[in-house]
Amino acid sequence: MSTEQQKLYYFDNNATTRVAPEVVEAMLPFLSEQYGNPSSAYQFGKFAGEAVRMAREKVAVLINADPREVLFTSCGTESINSAIHSALVTQPGKRHVLTTAVEHSATIKFCEFLEKRGYEVTFLPVESDGGIDVHLLEKNIRPDTAIVSVMWANNETGVVFPIEEIAAICRSKGTLFHTDAVQTPGKLKIDVQDLGVDFLSLSAHKLHAPKGIGLLYIKRRTKYQPYVIGGGQEQGRRGGTENTASIVGFGRAAELAMASLNDENTRVRTMRDRMEKAIFGKITDCVRNGDAMSRLPNTSNIAFDFVEAESVLALLDQAGICASSGSACTTGSLDPSHVLVAMGLTPARARGSIRFSLGKYTTDAEVDYLLEQLPQIIAKLRAMSPSKPQPAKATQAA
Amino acid sequence: MSTEQQKLYYFDNNATTRVAPEVVEAMLPFLSEQYGNPSSAYQFGKFAGEAVRMAREKVAVLINADPREVLFTSCGTESINSAIHSALVTQPGKRHVLTTAVEHSATIKFCEFLEKRGYEVTFLPVESDGGIDVHLLEKNIRPDTAIVSVMWANNETGVVFPIEEIAAICRSKGTLFHTDAVQTPGKLKIDVQDLGVDFLSLSAHKLHAPKGIGLLYIKRRTKYQPYVIGGGQEQGRRGGTENTASIVGFGRAAELAMASLNDENTRVRTMRDRMEKAIFGKITDCVRNGDAMSRLPNTSNIAFDFVEAESVLALLDQAGICASSGSACTTGSLDPSHVLVAMGLTPARARGSIRFSLGKYTTDAEVDYLLEQLPQIIAKLRAMSPSKPQPAKATQAA
Repeated sequence: MSTEQQKLYYFDNNATTRVAPEVVEAMLPFLSEQYGNPSSAYQFGKFAGEAVRMAREKVAVLINADPREVLFTSCGTESINSAIHSALVTQPGKRHVLTTAVEHSATIKFCEFLEKRGYEVTFLPVESDGGIDVHLLEKNIRPDTAIVSVMWANNETGVVFPIEEIAAICRSKGTLFHTDAVQTPGKLKIDVQDLGVDFLSLSAHKLHAPKGIGLLYIKRRTKYQPYVIGGGQEQGRRGGTENTASIVGFGRAAELAMASLNDENTRVRTMRDRMEKAIFGKITDCVRNGDAMSRLPNTSNIAFDFVEAESVLALLDQAGICASSGSACTTGSLDPSHVLVAMGLTPARARGSIRFSLGKYTTDAEVDYLLEQLPQIIAKLRAMSPSKPQPAKATQAA
Repeated sequence: MSTEQQKLYYFDNNATTRVAPEVVEAMLPFLSEQYGNPSSAYQFGKFAGEAVRMAREKVAVLINADPREVLFTSCGTESINSAIHSALVTQPGKRHVLTTAVEHSATIKFCEFLEKRGYEVTFLPVESDGGIDVHLLEKNIRPDTAIVSVMWANNETGVVFPIEEIAAICRSKGTLFHTDAVQTPGKLKIDVQDLGVDFLSLSAHKLHAPKGIGLLYIKRRTKYQPYVIGGGQEQGRRGGTENTASIVGFGRAAELAMASLNDENTRVRTMRDRMEKAIFGKITDCVRNGDAMSRLPNTSNIAFDFVEAESVLALLDQAGICASSGSACTTGSLDPSHVLVAMGLTPARARGSIRFSLGKYTTDAEVDYLLEQLPQIIAKLRAMSPSKPQPAKATQAA
């Protein structure tokens, strides 16, 4: 396979991340001799149960929660579905959900399903910089709003929402608040106490742990109705044999994420900013999507006029560079990104937008390679474009 | 830890199984350099996507399904919940579920939740040998029965239900049929065409693959409403980034399970039968729970009168032997096994019952060790029992 021969330039860390070698090392005993069922009563099972307990503590430290507030799920999507479902089932009189138009499909598609089931959902618009009008949000909270669900950082643009402020509004209105924080670990400091959220969702594979394991933080004394229902695992809040190896991996990754928070906000941010500046310097007719300041340190989403992102990505791929035009979860869809459209981009500009997401394993040399390849690729495609740009000066992002 | 020093005698393969070394080997590339998101459009993602596709084919072969009928989930519990949920949502006029009193908690607890949500559930009783009265089942199918869900093999007793016959009845009544087949791979030949089921659930960790990955077979042209809702993964039927490594491991384990079907039904069955015969020969006042003939080849559930299973298990554990008193998923519950109580055992006898489940890694030497330890342990506990047995001859199981 070409991927094994060619060096890989990975700029898609918001889609998924390399499992850290330290994480694999922590997992391996539980994929071999330590295969006991953590719920079994004998010592061999208890050893696995103890490993799950220690991992839960580590993940709790990452978000400053009590370990009893940490529920392991199978992915971010399950966490998000579970939080919203629980809020509706535990408050049968409240049949309204308030969310935004730029959420991940785990929220949007689940809410659309709820609409078919007779619930009411409000999808708040966003502003042109991807930000949210908090006053508009406040006005849309109704007495029958069971839960407000707003992502902390957008997966496509990296735009960060004022979650603490929104949580405070929800608290004052007596409404539950959930945040999809999948993109934040290792990039933002997560403190559920300071944030004041009732629910918070994470996905381990975004922080150098394996795919197939997620987390739902449930604030103490919050009523909870399990979504995956079966045995008494997870304090009776999620059936199914505990995914020991992946939970242990998640725990180790949580430790690493805390350690890399500084690197992400210095080295990675500097690299991202250098990359952006160079792109805007070298390529005309391109513009940043989303607010420049209130943004994750690793993400850059850029609209290149007069090209189709799909074509750019295909040529980048030939050069060994991985980037994306939106969420991997919606790859294959012909529609332009719902996030960019909600921000008011024309469909054409949205279709010419590319997300670059860096990470702890990204190097300056890799950025240099991208900066060498990308201008050539854009120029090549524009030369073939029926809507060729007029000769113009380099456009600096607003 | 003692488990690392002491040799382990593992007689709890119905709770979970050792991950086969071949399975770990197949997984490792996807826990290291092949970390791409299978849904990403670039080659690096497509390589992971191709691995998922190949694993789906292997698992489809195990159950003789078309790969498009295979949905990967996070566990058996999610599969079971999903099948029942889908049947209810896609047939809004039908609000009745028919199941049995001896199902796994993934079915029973989910159905109890449905009852609270206004659905009607019938839990069919079983006979004293753990078997089901198929005519009674037929009589309980109503015009508004959305789905019948009956396990193929009971996890506690190993009793096998006539799934093919039940599926035919459901078909003739126009009712969907789901079977929880979690305990069957590598033990029974699984052919969804012959069985005629609409849904079938599996869990990978019961067949020497890791925990945290399951399967739901959905017969072609069966309407399906996703349970975990998000991105377009799994043909739009299950959101969440594909758990590549575990899916690949599941695929490899499916191949191994097909290869070990013969071993399980000859060597393992012979070992189990020898073990049972020796126990009945060496220990008085004990009796087999469940039909001797229509039973998985690896499972033995025995009631030892005048002892508490918990005490027996604790002493077995001291000797390095892992066995259980029921499902690991309900460990810690003070209630006697719902399966054994449904079969008409007195609570005392149910509380004195132990499940031994063998597997491909079980050896004759391990069985010999169990046969050396168990009689001493039972004798020791009976000597301390307030309800000591009368001097009597060895009781042979009915």
